[in-house]
Amino acid sequence: MAVLKSTDFDEWYNEIVERADLCDKRYPVKGMNVWRPYGWEVLQNIDALIREELKKTHHQEVYFPLLIPEKLFKKEADHIKGFDAQVYWVTHAGENKLEERLLLRPTSETAIYSIYPLWIRSHADLPLKTFQIVNTFRYETKMTKAFLRVREIHFFESHTCHRDFKDAERQIQEDLEMAQGFFKNLCLPYLLSKRPEWDKFAGAFYSIGIDVILPSKRVIQLGSIHQYKENFSRPFGITYEDEEGNHQYCHQTTYGMSERLLGATISIHGDDKGISLPPSVAPIQVVIIPIIFKGKEEMVQKKCQEVYEKIENQGWRVHLDDRDSTPGGKYYEWELKGVPLRVDIGPRDIEKGTVTLVRRDGKKIEMLETTLLDGIKKEMDDYGESLMHQAQTFSDNLIHRSDSPKKGMEGIIEVPWCGDETCGLEMEEELDMKTLGTPIPTVECMGTCPRCGKTATTWVRLAHTY
Amino acid sequence: MAVLKSTDFDEWYNEIVERADLCDKRYPVKGMNVWRPYGWEVLQNIDALIREELKKTHHQEVYFPLLIPEKLFKKEADHIKGFDAQVYWVTHAGENKLEERLLLRPTSETAIYSIYPLWIRSHADLPLKTFQIVNTFRYETKMTKAFLRVREIHFFESHTCHRDFKDAERQIQEDLEMAQGFFKNLCLPYLLSKRPEWDKFAGAFYSIGIDVILPSKRVIQLGSIHQYKENFSRPFGITYEDEEGNHQYCHQTTYGMSERLLGATISIHGDDKGISLPPSVAPIQVVIIPIIFKGKEEMVQKKCQEVYEKIENQGWRVHLDDRDSTPGGKYYEWELKGVPLRVDIGPRDIEKGTVTLVRRDGKKIEMLETTLLDGIKKEMDDYGESLMHQAQTFSDNLIHRSDSPKKGMEGIIEVPWCGDETCGLEMEEELDMKTLGTPIPTVECMGTCPRCGKTATTWVRLAHTY
Repeated sequence: MAVLKSTDFDEWYNEIVERADLCDKRYPVKGMNVWRPYGWEVLQNIDALIREELKKTHHQEVYFPLLIPEKLFKKEADHIKGFDAQVYWVTHAGENKLEERLLLRPTSETAIYSIYPLWIRSHADLPLKTFQIVNTFRYETKMTKAFLRVREIHFFESHTCHRDFKDAERQIQEDLEMAQGFFKNLCLPYLLSKRPEWDKFAGAFYSIGIDVILPSKRVIQLGSIHQYKENFSRPFGITYEDEEGNHQYCHQTTYGMSERLLGATISIHGDDKGISLPPSVAPIQVVIIPIIFKGKEEMVQKKCQEVYEKIENQGWRVHLDDRDSTPGGKYYEWELKGVPLRVDIGPRDIEKGTVTLVRRDGKKIEMLETTLLDGIKKEMDDYGESLMHQAQTFSDNLIHRSDSPKKGMEGIIEVPWCGDETCGLEMEEELDMKTLGTPIPTVECMGTCPRCGKTATTWVRLAHTY
Repeated sequence: MAVLKSTDFDEWYNEIVERADLCDKRYPVKGMNVWRPYGWEVLQNIDALIREELKKTHHQEVYFPLLIPEKLFKKEADHIKGFDAQVYWVTHAGENKLEERLLLRPTSETAIYSIYPLWIRSHADLPLKTFQIVNTFRYETKMTKAFLRVREIHFFESHTCHRDFKDAERQIQEDLEMAQGFFKNLCLPYLLSKRPEWDKFAGAFYSIGIDVILPSKRVIQLGSIHQYKENFSRPFGITYEDEEGNHQYCHQTTYGMSERLLGATISIHGDDKGISLPPSVAPIQVVIIPIIFKGKEEMVQKKCQEVYEKIENQGWRVHLDDRDSTPGGKYYEWELKGVPLRVDIGPRDIEKGTVTLVRRDGKKIEMLETTLLDGIKKEMDDYGESLMHQAQTFSDNLIHRSDSPKKGMEGIIEVPWCGDETCGLEMEEELDMKTLGTPIPTVECMGTCPRCGKTATTWVRLAHTY
């Protein structure tokens, strides 16, 4: 008997990722799962959305090697401190001990920045905007969880170089606009927070977290955008010659996301029946189910094939499920796997010239077959909006402001804050929560810091996190 | 001054991979290069061709973890022997020594076959046809060479399971048909040889090599197809229940290819001016060059934009090079980068209602603008055929039959062979060549083995190899 999302989200999640054929967790290395065909197809659709946004903004795709020499990795001091406990080391090849240890990239700053000085000569080479989608590795010590905390990570990372701080800031604005595009496609509401100093990315000048609230009411970071200023360009010597012939250090930014996007999509949109995929990433957007009655087989099959071709010609990813089994079993399976729309066609429909359109969320519409294509377009859009609306309501209800926060509060608490690190860390401890950071865009705050009583300079967000 | 292909192929190759912006060899780990945007785009186009063929034949794409536990890797005895000297070992994570060493996959049999027993229950689950496109790692001891011999390999590998030997053989026939499709798209002639016993894949029952001759007159393997029989299913316990309720071992096959496909494409089609990309994989298939004369700028720009849109609407990958530089410099660059077709548009063309179409191989055609789209279609096809024809002629001229082969012969020598391993190995030594194997499909041979004088049972191919 399957666990219900409504009664035990965590257990439901652990089961559904396998029951919906997304992954197989039985591979004998902890935190490294097998992507099954259906899950891999969803992930490839997510990657396609990422590539689309990045191409629009003139980023170029590259691929840098997985293995990074130890010396290279240690060039930027803060960066190593942040990752030292998390990297996998290759020490031998065949029977030989390597002269220098190599590590599996946990992220690719140090690999990429060893080559940038060779690619950038003058201001005319800037901005340089590249990205890659690769496997990265982190030896996570916390409990692993499919898609949400894994040790082999499917990672998107963009890396950009700019002539000055201002142009790098423009890039960050562009990144935020791209994020809007991605997350809309996944029907996911999110919050942007500027991470506090004590929790920014190893080597960053500042970091922006892209966070969502899961049904556990805990927050997970789905992406991050970093302003590096000259923190990496100095140790790696990434300079350009300006119009006056002076050599200047580049300013750099990065933007990263992973298969957590999929994990959050499943978590937030799923229900007791299974996962619910947003139309943009569903491998099958429309499934056709023939309702066969004895003696009418041929008529139904012919009509289903005809409808299949019509839908496919419109560019939808459509599947005709003509297996020799009951409609009920098929409904169950495609609901479990989160297909947005189902079209049922039986002999009575054919006689009336109608079809029955059923949305993954249960809405059922009988319509004339002649209006089916319009119906699919409309219901697909409405279904996406409905996913977004439901997720937005859930999220909004879990964000609260409080000038006297107490331990045991749920969701995200926004508290007036003086900006002092000590007060921030004390609140974390008192509430047993983590600081997400200050809202982006900034929101005026008129209160007083509950720790020290000074006038607050900003709101700060705290939450239970993954 | 650039090296010419016609005078020094090896040096030309080493230079052209960087000059044409395909890769950067300055990454500080031997045999691991950086893919630049242009090279990565060609590779992604090659991957798209592979995926297309595999989807047509109902293979499903999966992704298995990179890291393989040592014990798992050692389950099939011959397989380990074949790879033991070539694998990279991960021994530490963070500060900890791992309890069990993990290796970077050199190929994924042992990773995938640990899970197959969980996926296959009955005959109804067969055939199981999966593939993945992933990074693999081999600690090559020979001299590395961009795309042709690297230590991080971009690898396509399909893995199939069947109920019996006969069905696995059918799969191999299907693989051979797919190969025909890939190689036609790359305009590459190839030879199929059944590898001799002493050179088959580690763990295989038999192996088929897909080989091409490079301009160095040496042969390189671009792909391989293996019949495993029950060699892996027995140690890994991959069984199914047949119709009578008996448990049977699966028969398995694999098919693998890598970025060597790109290396060979560059090597074979390139010339002194640069690389020549087959239309199927060229990131830019048509480039438009405005021929600007003073006072006519606007007119030319407008016409170029108009033509650009017409070509793009036909689905071609087209680029309008409107940089502020001379046409000559642009011609040079796009020839270097192997763009199949160029369209020149100047004021005189516009007055006459014509455009000039120039093929990468130098053929120049003035045509009415109204016939341009037909012209592009025709010349694109012809250009592809011409690449194939030229490559075929080159290859055919380097395949010779001889019943008294001598050291110093070039290309591929087909020799009558008794089938005896001793005679084969002696010929290898005497000719200082490697055995490619026996022709597929088999070709009747009436001669006598030049080593032992017995009646030959088959031809055998020998060549200098990479």
